[in-house]
Amino acid sequence: MRVLVVHGPNLNLLGERQPEIYGTQTLAEIDAALMQEAKHLGIELRTTQHNAEGAIIDALHAAREEYDAVIINPGAYAHYSYAIADAIASLRVPVVEVHLSNLAARETHRRTSVTAGSCKGYVAGFGGRSYLMALRALQEIVKS
Amino acid sequence: MRVLVVHGPNLNLLGERQPEIYGTQTLAEIDAALMQEAKHLGIELRTTQHNAEGAIIDALHAAREEYDAVIINPGAYAHYSYAIADAIASLRVPVVEVHLSNLAARETHRRTSVTAGSCKGYVAGFGGRSYLMALRALQEIVKS
Amino acid sequence: MRVLVVHGPNLNLLGERQPEIYGTQTLAEIDAALMQEAKHLGIELRTTQHNAEGAIIDALHAAREEYDAVIINPGAYAHYSYAIADAIASLRVPVVEVHLSNLAARETHRRTSVTAGSCKGYVAGFGGRSYLMALRALQEIVKS
Amino acid sequence: MRVLVVHGPNLNLLGERQPEIYGTQTLAEIDAALMQEAKHLGIELRTTQHNAEGAIIDALHAAREEYDAVIINPGAYAHYSYAIADAIASLRVPVVEVHLSNLAARETHRRTSVTAGSCKGYVAGFGGRSYLMALRALQEIVKS
Amino acid sequence: MRVLVVHGPNLNLLGERQPEIYGTQTLAEIDAALMQEAKHLGIELRTTQHNAEGAIIDALHAAREEYDAVIINPGAYAHYSYAIADAIASLRVPVVEVHLSNLAARETHRRTSVTAGSCKGYVAGFGGRSYLMALRALQEIVKS
Amino acid sequence: MRVLVVHGPNLNLLGERQPEIYGTQTLAEIDAALMQEAKHLGIELRTTQHNAEGAIIDALHAAREEYDAVIINPGAYAHYSYAIADAIASLRVPVVEVHLSNLAARETHRRTSVTAGSCKGYVAGFGGRSYLMALRALQEIVKS
Amino acid sequence: MRVLVVHGPNLNLLGERQPEIYGTQTLAEIDAALMQEAKHLGIELRTTQHNAEGAIIDALHAAREEYDAVIINPGAYAHYSYAIADAIASLRVPVVEVHLSNLAARETHRRTSVTAGSCKGYVAGFGGRSYLMALRALQEIVKS
Amino acid sequence: MRVLVVHGPNLNLLGERQPEIYGTQTLAEIDAALMQEAKHLGIELRTTQHNAEGAIIDALHAAREEYDAVIINPGAYAHYSYAIADAIASLRVPVVEVHLSNLAARETHRRTSVTAGSCKGYVAGFGGRSYLMALRALQEIVKS
Amino acid sequence: MRVLVVHGPNLNLLGERQPEIYGTQTLAEIDAALMQEAKHLGIELRTTQHNAEGAIIDALHAAREEYDAVIINPGAYAHYSYAIADAIASLRVPVVEVHLSNLAARETHRRTSVTAGSCKGYVAGFGGRSYLMALRALQEIVKS
Amino acid sequence: MRVLVVHGPNLNLLGERQPEIYGTQTLAEIDAALMQEAKHLGIELRTTQHNAEGAIIDALHAAREEYDAVIINPGAYAHYSYAIADAIASLRVPVVEVHLSNLAARETHRRTSVTAGSCKGYVAGFGGRSYLMALRALQEIVKS
Amino acid sequence: MRVLVVHGPNLNLLGERQPEIYGTQTLAEIDAALMQEAKHLGIELRTTQHNAEGAIIDALHAAREEYDAVIINPGAYAHYSYAIADAIASLRVPVVEVHLSNLAARETHRRTSVTAGSCKGYVAGFGGRSYLMALRALQEIVKS
Amino acid sequence: MRVLVVHGPNLNLLGERQPEIYGTQTLAEIDAALMQEAKHLGIELRTTQHNAEGAIIDALHAAREEYDAVIINPGAYAHYSYAIADAIASLRVPVVEVHLSNLAARETHRRTSVTAGSCKGYVAGFGGRSYLMALRALQEIVKS
Repeated sequence: MRVLVVHGPNLNLLGERQPEIYGTQTLAEIDAALMQEAKHLGIELRTTQHNAEGAIIDALHAAREEYDAVIINPGAYAHYSYAIADAIASLRVPVVEVHLSNLAARETHRRTSVTAGSCKGYVAGFGGRSYLMALRALQEIVKS
Repeated sequence: MRVLVVHGPNLNLLGERQPEIYGTQTLAEIDAALMQEAKHLGIELRTTQHNAEGAIIDALHAAREEYDAVIINPGAYAHYSYAIADAIASLRVPVVEVHLSNLAARETHRRTSVTAGSCKGYVAGFGGRSYLMALRALQEIVKS
Repeated sequence: MRVLVVHGPNLNLLGERQPEIYGTQTLAEIDAALMQEAKHLGIELRTTQHNAEGAIIDALHAAREEYDAVIINPGAYAHYSYAIADAIASLRVPVVEVHLSNLAARETHRRTSVTAGSCKGYVAGFGGRSYLMALRALQEIVKS
Repeated sequence: MRVLVVHGPNLNLLGERQPEIYGTQTLAEIDAALMQEAKHLGIELRTTQHNAEGAIIDALHAAREEYDAVIINPGAYAHYSYAIADAIASLRVPVVEVHLSNLAARETHRRTSVTAGSCKGYVAGFGGRSYLMALRALQEIVKS
Repeated sequence: MRVLVVHGPNLNLLGERQPEIYGTQTLAEIDAALMQEAKHLGIELRTTQHNAEGAIIDALHAAREEYDAVIINPGAYAHYSYAIADAIASLRVPVVEVHLSNLAARETHRRTSVTAGSCKGYVAGFGGRSYLMALRALQEIVKS
Repeated sequence: MRVLVVHGPNLNLLGERQPEIYGTQTLAEIDAALMQEAKHLGIELRTTQHNAEGAIIDALHAAREEYDAVIINPGAYAHYSYAIADAIASLRVPVVEVHLSNLAARETHRRTSVTAGSCKGYVAGFGGRSYLMALRALQEIVKS
Repeated sequence: MRVLVVHGPNLNLLGERQPEIYGTQTLAEIDAALMQEAKHLGIELRTTQHNAEGAIIDALHAAREEYDAVIINPGAYAHYSYAIADAIASLRVPVVEVHLSNLAARETHRRTSVTAGSCKGYVAGFGGRSYLMALRALQEIVKS
Repeated sequence: MRVLVVHGPNLNLLGERQPEIYGTQTLAEIDAALMQEAKHLGIELRTTQHNAEGAIIDALHAAREEYDAVIINPGAYAHYSYAIADAIASLRVPVVEVHLSNLAARETHRRTSVTAGSCKGYVAGFGGRSYLMALRALQEIVKS
Repeated sequence: MRVLVVHGPNLNLLGERQPEIYGTQTLAEIDAALMQEAKHLGIELRTTQHNAEGAIIDALHAAREEYDAVIINPGAYAHYSYAIADAIASLRVPVVEVHLSNLAARETHRRTSVTAGSCKGYVAGFGGRSYLMALRALQEIVKS
Repeated sequence: MRVLVVHGPNLNLLGERQPEIYGTQTLAEIDAALMQEAKHLGIELRTTQHNAEGAIIDALHAAREEYDAVIINPGAYAHYSYAIADAIASLRVPVVEVHLSNLAARETHRRTSVTAGSCKGYVAGFGGRSYLMALRALQEIVKS
Repeated sequence: MRVLVVHGPNLNLLGERQPEIYGTQTLAEIDAALMQEAKHLGIELRTTQHNAEGAIIDALHAAREEYDAVIINPGAYAHYSYAIADAIASLRVPVVEVHLSNLAARETHRRTSVTAGSCKGYVAGFGGRSYLMALRALQEIVKS
Repeated sequence: MRVLVVHGPNLNLLGERQPEIYGTQTLAEIDAALMQEAKHLGIELRTTQHNAEGAIIDALHAAREEYDAVIINPGAYAHYSYAIADAIASLRVPVVEVHLSNLAARETHRRTSVTAGSCKGYVAGFGGRSYLMALRALQEIVKS
């Protein structure tokens, strides 16, 4: 099983950016934890980070042929990018949207995700652990 | 570690109620899967189901002393029960909100959860598996 | 044929509560008229009144097995109880929503029913007669 | 007792128009059923169908002198015709608004009726039977 | 003169629940202060606390015959319970709504009370003192 | 100078329709007063009343060639008829919108006029006198 | 008969301020025309102009005893001054709101008047003539 | 192949009405161009213009039997006539909505078409050419 | 202890202005009752009434040095004066907002107070007694 | 005459992406049809597809010097990209917006185009034919 | 060159009022810095502070003849005073709106300025420096 | 001191794009003026222009290490790019948002900036001078 993880805008700054909200774990550490878990689960995993909306769409398109499942943290694009929502909807494999923080407890504009409706499921609020939860769930879903 | 699982209104009908949305798994089957996983993780687990808003608040209050974490599926109360939101906010232990279906992909009124903002995290769209994901995450959170 | 009639909150005060809006007929009198009409139509009828949202959901669930049709006057719950709406949607028998007064001619918040969309039909504005109209219609619907 | 039934726009196509929503009964069949029931109840009945808003207003005005009650299915005009609402409000006899389908379960724009607030009562969701329910209720109202 | 005090959901946790907002005074202490003041004013007082919406409606109904005035702190139900609003409107004795905190200075959803419009008056922001202010005012109102 | 007066829907019932709002003056009496005033001012006046939106548009179109000014009371069409608004905008002569009652003091939906923005001026709240005020003003405007 | 004319904020600049909207007539010229017409009608007239909301309220209060009717052009206060609206509502004599330009044809925020609902009538769009129309109408109203 | 073209309200004034928006081409000229193009394409074409909503509905109904495709310019009715939208939805042949001007670049109320959702396609902004584009497209659609 | 009472716009007319809403008690009578109660409580009290927003702000500023607490009835300014809200927020002593009528039971625009959020507490609906309740509460607050 | 066709995000997936909505025609097939038609019309045509908002803006800028007209299908960017709208507005040559599906008949968020207002015209709902219609129209517009 | 600086409501308290938001600089210190900079730039400067909306309008009117440019900090009036907006619009000299704090980062109601649209430019978030920036810019604008 | 200036989408067209709004100054001329002023102030300055949202985010991230302050003109991204807002919020150095035109005086959608709330300050309406004002202010802020 092959899984693609797409990290959205500003996630490259994880660990230094507003640590009181996003924690001190860096993206490299999250990727490392994901890699270790993937190895443990027998999953072939690739992670990628893009600040550009278009690059995220390209990455999702490329996933159509090569991956069995996708995890995406669309960052702030979750709140307005109908183009990413369309790209997700065009995939045939299951996609799970994850967020580090619990968006429901933050500013009003973060309480709506226009991309989540195109996904299979949604996990938010568990920090880097949100990705691991999605990964395990996707393995079970794809297997079943 | 002790965990309380609170199932909200109409979940007692799981399996027979709109199976095209909620699946054919019954609540008893979900509870059995939760129990097995809890046993596996060394967690003491109790599950309870209530159709009444007041009974859910009572159950949450009781959890203040006796549990280390709570999983709640507030069902439709998620969309308007500020009273349950306040009850969750009054707990000192972590609470995770779960939903069987991916609410972001359903009717407009289901896209807003007034209770999620009082929780630690949110998992939706994985059927009965949503509960298991929350359970494992809570164990890691409480341990850390 | 068996029909359940569920009267919602504050309807127990009928006759004394704001008679300029709801009329002077008591709930007992409405129930008596319903019983008489049911007898006349050869319908087995039971009526029940609950102020609690959870009790109304319980009553609707119970109706799943035992009744061929349901009449519900959700009172003010019509305007916000998505939990009752879900309970109605989980029934397989036809449900008709009735109101004593014509809600469209009253305060703004009364002009929207979140429960009516889960029902088969809707009757409002005919006082106690609203129930009788629903009863006769349900008989014809179930027969056909 | 004399009753006027006003059928609004597009109802002349009943039976062929979107039968999955409106059923296969034609307007002629509804009128025949109404006539038979009226005869049974000793009511003098006239039915009329108009696609034009102005013609519906004219028909309502004419009813001021000649009828003891009115049944109106304003069709889509229900959602925006304040002019028909005013015409109904200018009548001194009771008016009942009926709809074939349960508008609360359809598109958002169909969930609001600006004409219903000028009526005595409202019946929706029972197909052609909605008219018969209104007819019987009006007879009882006018008699009482 | 007899006065009923109805405490709404989550108020049983007063003193331990978010003391930075609601203070450290417990409900028992508020009730004791109310009892002492009532005694001083020659008022027969009963207090009751309910987490369930239906139980609050029941308590209000019971007050119809037995009390001369009611004080209600509807807690979070103030923001959506039209059923409680209807129950208050069905009483013939004066009802005063009280809140411990000044809701106008808190989250947006707390700035609207759908129950206050059915009451005689409204007091908010004085902690446990809000109840005492309402009690004294009701005595003067009933006497006058 | 030639002036056309267009009375909109339901105005034919003036005098009998909700006299507490619209007064007891009939349309014939208003027309007579207008005729007398027009004669006094040396104005050639024609009045016409239509319940149908299309007929009002036709009348306005006809006015393009034959009249120097138009007075229109669009009745309830004022609140939604963009088609009448466009017809007014297509005239080259000044048009004044009049209403018998002061719409700003009535129901919310009557507080917006989509036709007034296409007119030269607006007079409301003076009963039949609103027309006379518009007539005199138009004479002065056309003369100047 | 005594009439008070209250000119609101910025009207002192009439003639020089945005003449493409408000015309080149100065306030002194409008006042002169009003005085001449008042003399002609046998009306005792006083005009006053205030930029301050409080001064307008004071002027309206003073009118309670000394005038038989009031004409007010609240200028921009029309769009938000509920305090002036309350002051108008506290008068027992008829008040007419006038505006020089046709507000319905201007920016969105000018299309709502919160003060007009407290008035007897409303005239807009006739330049300085709006005042004269109101004056003549008030004379007829007070006389009748 | 037979095509019906329905021109909506105020289009009869084309050429003289606000030519800076709608151009100087008259409706007769548009019809002539349509006729010539239809002849060229071997299409049997009829055009009709109505200011009345009801007449447009009638024309659409008549098209059910006699035409293979319909072009409609609903004019201002596009913004509120759910009755016309229903009439279009009741046709079984393809309908294309056309507008002379690009509504998206005009006043806010013109940016929403409630009728377009019932059509096959939508063309706006090309003046009289909008009709020709629709005609050619419909021929290709019906042939395919 | 020194307390300032600020009466807002139109309150000088109390007793004669809409007595069905505001009662027949005059402002002088309210002030007398306040003075008597203040004397009884050992409070040094000054009352002032202003129709002008700016004068109310000035009065509040002056209170910064000279008073230990403030009672304000902002009248209609409560619904839009962010300037008064800022002035209240700039005080260091407790401020209580009072209203004679229960605003929650009146017109929609009166249900929001933009000033209340800057206050310590809020009392509404008790007529002149609202002030006395605030006065006694402030004494207890300042003492504690 | 030279024309640039800009295909927006996700259009590269045409044919495989949700064919029930977008059809089975691929983008290569649409481009081939466009090329053939361009050749037939004597137009020099270039097509380009970009998932990135910035790349679409760059392409539009480049068109300023080199093309006589532009066809753009902004895909989901139509619903929020004011930056693309500004880029279109900065061109001096005519731009036509096209969509494959009839957006008016789809989800609510697809019914608004913020880019269409900067264009000359708009064509939607004809599948790949939408582009051909725009191409022919642009040729006629540029020639005239 | 002569410049008028108008400080709005509550700015007289600068330095003591909520220093965590507005800083510790007093208005006298800001005025001194402005005077010094004006002297340096060869500008004749006058500053004035008013809590009253009417006084601010008066000051702006007076500026029409005597000043070459105006700087205004409308304080909270920025959020609702259309009367001040109209006064600014009536000036012929450039006006710049300044705010001490960055309103975009504060409460929702502070994010809209109804006065800024009548100004030449807008500067916010630089504390007392906002005024100096405006002063230098105005000199350059007036000179150019 | 090092300052980065980020020009957003479409600003490369400055001078040719809608000069009636944005002036005739080109971006090269603005950059030259900025460079000259920077030299004068002893500031090390770099300017960059990007049409792509992702490139702007990248540029802001890069500024984290290398610059002491940032000036950003987000162009149309100001109205919806929460991703750029997050990128600004992740910087530790002060950021000032500038706009050439006074957005408050333009179309409704331009009156809201979702990025300004993450900035230190905001300058709009002074053409190319807006940048210079920001540059000088930032120097003073960083120095202090």
